[in-house]
Amino acid sequence: MLHREVSAGACPGAPEKIILDCDPGHDDAVAILLAHGSPAIELLAVTTVVGNQTLEKVTRNALVVAHVAGITGVPFAAGADRPLLREVQTAPDIHGETGMDGPELLEPDLALDPRHAVDVIIDTVMTHEPGTVTLVPTGGLTNIALAARKEPRIVERVKRVVLMGGGVAVGNWSPVAEFNIVIDPEAAAIVFSAGWDVTMVGLDVTHQALATPDVVARIAEVGTGPARFVGELFEHFARAYRDAQGFEHPPVHDPCAVAHVIDPTVVRAVRMPIVVETTGTHTLGMTVADRRAPAPTGCRTSAAMELDRERFWDLVVDALARIGEPGAG
Amino acid sequence: MLHREVSAGACPGAPEKIILDCDPGHDDAVAILLAHGSPAIELLAVTTVVGNQTLEKVTRNALVVAHVAGITGVPFAAGADRPLLREVQTAPDIHGETGMDGPELLEPDLALDPRHAVDVIIDTVMTHEPGTVTLVPTGGLTNIALAARKEPRIVERVKRVVLMGGGVAVGNWSPVAEFNIVIDPEAAAIVFSAGWDVTMVGLDVTHQALATPDVVARIAEVGTGPARFVGELFEHFARAYRDAQGFEHPPVHDPCAVAHVIDPTVVRAVRMPIVVETTGTHTLGMTVADRRAPAPTGCRTSAAMELDRERFWDLVVDALARIGEPGAG
Amino acid sequence: MLHREVSAGACPGAPEKIILDCDPGHDDAVAILLAHGSPAIELLAVTTVVGNQTLEKVTRNALVVAHVAGITGVPFAAGADRPLLREVQTAPDIHGETGMDGPELLEPDLALDPRHAVDVIIDTVMTHEPGTVTLVPTGGLTNIALAARKEPRIVERVKRVVLMGGGVAVGNWSPVAEFNIVIDPEAAAIVFSAGWDVTMVGLDVTHQALATPDVVARIAEVGTGPARFVGELFEHFARAYRDAQGFEHPPVHDPCAVAHVIDPTVVRAVRMPIVVETTGTHTLGMTVADRRAPAPTGCRTSAAMELDRERFWDLVVDALARIGEPGAG
Amino acid sequence: MLHREVSAGACPGAPEKIILDCDPGHDDAVAILLAHGSPAIELLAVTTVVGNQTLEKVTRNALVVAHVAGITGVPFAAGADRPLLREVQTAPDIHGETGMDGPELLEPDLALDPRHAVDVIIDTVMTHEPGTVTLVPTGGLTNIALAARKEPRIVERVKRVVLMGGGVAVGNWSPVAEFNIVIDPEAAAIVFSAGWDVTMVGLDVTHQALATPDVVARIAEVGTGPARFVGELFEHFARAYRDAQGFEHPPVHDPCAVAHVIDPTVVRAVRMPIVVETTGTHTLGMTVADRRAPAPTGCRTSAAMELDRERFWDLVVDALARIGEPGAG
Repeated sequence: MLHREVSAGACPGAPEKIILDCDPGHDDAVAILLAHGSPAIELLAVTTVVGNQTLEKVTRNALVVAHVAGITGVPFAAGADRPLLREVQTAPDIHGETGMDGPELLEPDLALDPRHAVDVIIDTVMTHEPGTVTLVPTGGLTNIALAARKEPRIVERVKRVVLMGGGVAVGNWSPVAEFNIVIDPEAAAIVFSAGWDVTMVGLDVTHQALATPDVVARIAEVGTGPARFVGELFEHFARAYRDAQGFEHPPVHDPCAVAHVIDPTVVRAVRMPIVVETTGTHTLGMTVADRRAPAPTGCRTSAAMELDRERFWDLVVDALARIGEPGAG
Repeated sequence: MLHREVSAGACPGAPEKIILDCDPGHDDAVAILLAHGSPAIELLAVTTVVGNQTLEKVTRNALVVAHVAGITGVPFAAGADRPLLREVQTAPDIHGETGMDGPELLEPDLALDPRHAVDVIIDTVMTHEPGTVTLVPTGGLTNIALAARKEPRIVERVKRVVLMGGGVAVGNWSPVAEFNIVIDPEAAAIVFSAGWDVTMVGLDVTHQALATPDVVARIAEVGTGPARFVGELFEHFARAYRDAQGFEHPPVHDPCAVAHVIDPTVVRAVRMPIVVETTGTHTLGMTVADRRAPAPTGCRTSAAMELDRERFWDLVVDALARIGEPGAG
Repeated sequence: MLHREVSAGACPGAPEKIILDCDPGHDDAVAILLAHGSPAIELLAVTTVVGNQTLEKVTRNALVVAHVAGITGVPFAAGADRPLLREVQTAPDIHGETGMDGPELLEPDLALDPRHAVDVIIDTVMTHEPGTVTLVPTGGLTNIALAARKEPRIVERVKRVVLMGGGVAVGNWSPVAEFNIVIDPEAAAIVFSAGWDVTMVGLDVTHQALATPDVVARIAEVGTGPARFVGELFEHFARAYRDAQGFEHPPVHDPCAVAHVIDPTVVRAVRMPIVVETTGTHTLGMTVADRRAPAPTGCRTSAAMELDRERFWDLVVDALARIGEPGAG
Repeated sequence: MLHREVSAGACPGAPEKIILDCDPGHDDAVAILLAHGSPAIELLAVTTVVGNQTLEKVTRNALVVAHVAGITGVPFAAGADRPLLREVQTAPDIHGETGMDGPELLEPDLALDPRHAVDVIIDTVMTHEPGTVTLVPTGGLTNIALAARKEPRIVERVKRVVLMGGGVAVGNWSPVAEFNIVIDPEAAAIVFSAGWDVTMVGLDVTHQALATPDVVARIAEVGTGPARFVGELFEHFARAYRDAQGFEHPPVHDPCAVAHVIDPTVVRAVRMPIVVETTGTHTLGMTVADRRAPAPTGCRTSAAMELDRERFWDLVVDALARIGEPGAG
């Protein structure tokens, strides 16, 4: 099978251990499914943070996805219910009132981990071998920033941070800022400047990850409950992105970050200095990248600039195929 | 005895439960001793935060003070080793290389609580009755801000926050900003705007709490080990404040916050709107108070504006007298 | 006569040459009258700037005052109709729709100088001996800033700048900012940092220059048309300040700057570093003064801190007496 | 002749009247020559502003170029010697100590207009028919901003502003800011927001206007004194840009703005909202363009995005050919 081969090719060794910090969110849901279904990923924990909707809603949505996908044995924990300094901003015009409008959201039967997301992140990183855990934030960066400040040792101990957010020369929430960064720019500034290796998977590539009809058709062909769930997510997502931002097909941002972890040739990143603007009047939350010259030695920030669209959707479809029909025991 | 009567008068009911979050620091040491020795205070925990010196040094100093004063059964826990966003600034010109230069600092035999200061604060507040615990920060506000963001329910649950920091119309680290605020202005902004009742015990009163020769003499008269320790602290503190800021006698800031909790007639506060400036070029970390009109209904910030100097030192001397000679058990 | 002696005592030599840059404005009108009537002042020019009302209105008001006071042979010129960067803010709640509500404002029969205020300022300074001309701005500092940028040589050539605006520890338009500074903080920053000698006559003293009933009575006793005009100005001013800011008697700000030029013992100033805040969220337009230590050598900024209330009003009443009844030829 | 036809084709009617406000500067010199030599341009005045070098140096350089090109009957006037608020920054690494290093700079025999550049701009605009004069700034925007503030009526009266500066998604002096904007961002903010039609000819196109060897050869072929002068300018410019910014061939920015006035099909612009960032920490002086959607109705800002490289250099060579050998009268 083609898909299996692609994944296998990209993952000759042990799967990448990740903590997914998210705010589901249609595309976060796909990111969770991709992480769960990919043999190249070992999902250590899922943590939630206010963003696309309130903490309560995105946390419930994360559990719904876990239920749909049959995820068990992975701690799900709730984190920050507001940004460090700014007031809460959510995105109901994109994600609807539930934060995951479209499919029916059944009451999940999973229990949350009693710990705070920040402690789950810290505990997980500190109890695994140094250099083995990758943080994959796909929402605002409040939890990650709080974790780095509460336990500074995680900065040296994680393998890297691969986040969905920002963009080199493009914005969505403002002319030059992206939603995940602008909703908590101070947290983003903490994360980008902490000293760990940060790969920004931003709008430069995620605006190429469009759920076009052929993609929708391929997912429908999988024919399982989780695949239908994704199809229903995409239906709402397509309508919302068309109405709110004029997109012909919706950009499916968050799984791009997971895809980069699975296979960096699918989402190619370039090393360059990146800092987050926190005081600009017109540029608040901009991820300011310096492309005037090759990155200096020791530069620890990268930006994803190219998406291999075909192979990206291969990864998603393959993950769904592997997940199969969870209820079917 | 006069001192006992004063204290008794000010504390007809149960003692005030406080968590002291500090960065010892000469005046922090006196604040710990005042809190421990006063019958009007029940010291629930002591937490430390980077400020006057590095986290490692101020934490060691807190344990040294605990040892000198014979404090047992109170958790001491270390917290943030850096501000939320800014780089670390310490005050070695005032507090010396150890952060508590002057007396010999013997190796303390107390063990730190293994929890993070932020968790000690949260656990302590959440396990006591609502409205019973007062937070008394006398350093930068990083721990308090992190606690409020990690567990937002503490904001409604604490009784109030009485902090040493800021000033209405006076600065020390800049023309209009005070050290504890300016070293982490974003944390201060979080604390002042969180919604709980905040009393700012700032330079307006602490610059009146001078360790003049009569005060030094009164403390010497107590004649105990802890009193001698304070005497040695004051010797260094006097010299440092004279050299660094031109003070004839050193202002002993931090116990003023504890004194306000013991007896609000000793450190009188006035209700007024106060916000923290985080973007000013010349005013970063200023506590901006609006004194143009009486405080509006619902205003939850106050500034201490008057010190009853005699009774303040009575409280300190009385606390030292009560502590006695710990080793003499 | 007492008043004559006071003035004479304060002005043993030649009168001070001033350019009055103003935005009449009730208190600006009194400043013009004081400058015109005082034997210690030679009024070289009156220039106008948007502030208390639009440029058109304040310029008309300046001509009205010239007419009432019988000022002839002095160029009156209009300047900036908006701040450098910010949007126009006026103060109709204090100065009314005309900018000088109260007395009947007859159509003035004087013609404006055709030059721009900025050019009148530059030409006047450059054609007088170096070190002889004092600039006295009593409105926003837009004209003065533009003049300093268009002809930088005026900075060395003026004697000094004595401005009404700001305050050391007090605000009116915000908790810590005064109207004249906050309406064009960038212009103020240019003026305070230009390098010339700047004396800030701010709210610290002008809030002492209250038009109390005894003052009103003394002015009424003068019995002339200009004195009645002032009486009518004060009637409106008193009502407006009571309603808008809760003052029992209105502070008559602007003549304090002229009075300082006439006699610096009437409005005493203290040398201290002062800078203008242009980026603060809560402190925009604050005049940040450093009082932590004596002013360093070479400091060229001062703040007026003490008003000799009796002698100040003596100066005003004396000026009105000298002006007499202009129409009475 | 090919060149004549191109120009003729682009200029069927009367030539465009322009005021060139510049800071020569190698590329400013070429802009002056292009404006002088093009039949599509009527050069009304040349004004100078601090930028590439000090005001004194760039003003001298402007006169040198006038002399080399035989420009007579056009007022040359000096303007601002420093930005509105910021300290002076020049670019000696690009333009050398003289600001126009390379050719021998003979003592010019032309006299400066005695008026200030700001007054020359205002007088010229106000004495020509409304809607006929185009401002072409190729340096910092201090003069233009001062003129707009001193005489606001020019904003409605000019035809448009076509400036070299900024960029949509590219910077040179910082990752996202261009030199002409960042040296006086407040002036730029005034110019971009004034309400007149502004076309930004920024790095997006000027980094395509490279003086490649074929261009150098074509200019050399013209064989006149002015052409040799340009050749010598390019020699230095090439070396400086290679050393300072790693360019293989130097970008000749400023004539692109003049070329857009001559023929907007040579330098194509797209309408889009553009604002200037004045408070950003990492984005100061960025020209923030909103490309998320088509420009709204009434949008008066455009950005040049495409250069027709061949025809651009045709215009320059043609202008040099027309200038001929001035001394040969």
